[in-house]
Amino acid sequence: MLTEIQEGKALNPVVKHITQEKINLYAEASGDFNPIHVDESFAAKTPFGGTIAHGMLNLAYVSEMMTLAFGRSWLSGGKLRARFKESARPGDTLTINGKIDCVEQKDGISYANCSFECRNQKGEMIVAGEAIVKVSSDKK
Amino acid sequence: MLTEIQEGKALNPVVKHITQEKINLYAEASGDFNPIHVDESFAAKTPFGGTIAHGMLNLAYVSEMMTLAFGRSWLSGGKLRARFKESARPGDTLTINGKIDCVEQKDGISYANCSFECRNQKGEMIVAGEAIVKVSSDKK
Repeated sequence: MLTEIQEGKALNPVVKHITQEKINLYAEASGDFNPIHVDESFAAKTPFGGTIAHGMLNLAYVSEMMTLAFGRSWLSGGKLRARFKESARPGDTLTINGKIDCVEQKDGISYANCSFECRNQKGEMIVAGEAIVKVSSDKK
Repeated sequence: MLTEIQEGKALNPVVKHITQEKINLYAEASGDFNPIHVDESFAAKTPFGGTIAHGMLNLAYVSEMMTLAFGRSWLSGGKLRARFKESARPGDTLTINGKIDCVEQKDGISYANCSFECRNQKGEMIVAGEAIVKVSSDKK
């Protein structure tokens, strides 16, 4: 958990290696067996040229970074905005970075507005966005 | 895939049953083994009172609904905004509904602005939000 909630504070980054095995596990967990994710010969014939990770798998890593930083506040009550740019592929290494852009008060509650980026090993943006999480409350 | 892109059009709903097994698979796929998700005795002692699904697993079902409706456009280039309300638990049945709120033109490209809701069997809101996807382009 983050001990200091202050503007500009970087969140601990999360680094993940994408494999077809993880994509297959994700398909089982989510029930999303779209062949673009799990059928290599099908995917090879599409404009993607091969299988791609589920977009939400990439976002799962963002969520993990937020959970590590903010715990239960993130798990219920978090808000997320995400823009999917490029697809992640087996063999990619993704790095998720985030920081607290600002801390805002609303109705006696403090919220941390964070921005995040998930990039692959070439520096290409996979998904970017913002996440908002409650960090303290004067109210019960 | 949706054949008609028009305002008010409902997307085909997705219905999913949450099990501890799916949560465990999701933990393996994502690498997020936070005990609130996978350790039943730990989770029982928290304010949640038991394990909860990863928020992104719920969102994965939203993404599946969007992929079924919009295909590749959603997979690269989609935008998502989500508000996490309640946590889903093993035993829950989640229903994800969505519709096209409006179709907007920007720089010769049409975008479908969709809203979605994921509720459990009691009607409680798990996650709600908006998703934007490109539906046609005059440009190459």
